Amino acid sequence: MPGKIICLGLGPGDPELMSVRAHRYLTNARLVAFFRKAGAKGVARRLVEGLLHPDATEIPMEYPVTTEIPVSDPRYNAALAGFYEKWTTKLLRRSEEEDVVVLCEGDPFFYGSFMHLYARLPRERVEVVPGIPGMAGCWTATGLPITWGDDILTVLPATLPQEDLARRIRDTDALVVMKIGRNLPRLRAALESAGRADQAWLIEHGTMAEERVQMLSEVEGPVPYFSIVLVHGQGRRP
Amino acid sequence: MPGKIICLGLGPGDPELMSVRAHRYLTNARLVAFFRKAGAKGVARRLVEGLLHPDATEIPMEYPVTTEIPVSDPRYNAALAGFYEKWTTKLLRRSEEEDVVVLCEGDPFFYGSFMHLYARLPRERVEVVPGIPGMAGCWTATGLPITWGDDILTVLPATLPQEDLARRIRDTDALVVMKIGRNLPRLRAALESAGRADQAWLIEHGTMAEERVQMLSEVEGPVPYFSIVLVHGQGRRP
Repeated sequence: MPGKIICLGLGPGDPELMSVRAHRYLTNARLVAFFRKAGAKGVARRLVEGLLHPDATEIPMEYPVTTEIPVSDPRYNAALAGFYEKWTTKLLRRSEEEDVVVLCEGDPFFYGSFMHLYARLPRERVEVVPGIPGMAGCWTATGLPITWGDDILTVLPATLPQEDLARRIRDTDALVVMKIGRNLPRLRAALESAGRADQAWLIEHGTMAEERVQMLSEVEGPVPYFSIVLVHGQGRRP
Repeated sequence: MPGKIICLGLGPGDPELMSVRAHRYLTNARLVAFFRKAGAKGVARRLVEGLLHPDATEIPMEYPVTTEIPVSDPRYNAALAGFYEKWTTKLLRRSEEEDVVVLCEGDPFFYGSFMHLYARLPRERVEVVPGIPGMAGCWTATGLPITWGDDILTVLPATLPQEDLARRIRDTDALVVMKIGRNLPRLRAALESAGRADQAWLIEHGTMAEERVQMLSEVEGPVPYFSIVLVHGQGRRP
């Protein structure tokens, strides 16, 4: 029987917020793979500092491109497709003798990179452990519930065109916006045109030591790609 | 120093999917409160079977009403407001000497009943531990990622009017519908008029022993209130 490729949703950042199952797999793993930008430590890898088994072998999977080519450029897709193909083959080979654990921040099936390996792997060789999505860590950090009663929640990537953002922000009760970074000016404009700029919060590094929770109107300067913008619902509350 | 009221998000159902922190608080707690329908065991309480400390005292908080009065009836709101007021006072008193843990399925700030106590409690006496939302357990159970690339996710309560449901189902990439139960016929009609009925999944008891994952088109008969309906996004995948 060959081993498995087990993707662990690590949750929003605080290591104590990973699931009991993810923690068990993580601390026993001998082969630990994770994505990272070339030259960086890796977002998911940083979350498990001090938790790996002393005999664990680390397998960094370095993206061939992150923001150097626009997503719309065909070369972006081609480079990433080749990258995911290569790592599908490599992880299958590495897992023949022993399980390989793949680290994933948040929840693997919610905008996670692992999905692109998952789609290429034989289903019987993979296991996915869900995690607390980053957004749940972030709304908990604001100290305010995100949805009440019959509230509608919309999750938007900030990469959308400004008019799309504005229309959808106007048309929802509760809002989560992901993938902020360089898209913040366009998102701000959309929030303003929807009349909701003064209700928006920005959370950086939610649940981590560097956590920063602010009203968006107070935020100055650049913010990380993995920041999250929230507007809380105001639904029924007996 | 008085104790705290600590709300534990227990996650989607499988006890191993609660966070390491929730598990630590849970297994050490001497006072364990939870909501339940009068006469029932309690949804959250069932999730922690066998995990409570032998000296733990259980504090069931029984809803005065669940589906006997429509939510729109002013008596519904009045009954629940009185109930939450009473338990705010009681839990504050019980926590003067010792921490009280409150059990909550899923994530407490995502449509959770605890929010109604939270809104009444002094902020410095409360702590909230986030959990994996039920929907994340459910999409993992389908074996398919929920959002890819720039997909938009909309979360709807099935309690909305049929036209609202249909319009929003037509206008999103990925979809999660909560609070199904008796609302299923209206939701089915909305999915059909949006042309997405054949893409919808229904998950009952996601991640639990009784888990049942089906295409919605194959579902017959009544389904639990806590079932979840999903339509997966089909966004960019290199």
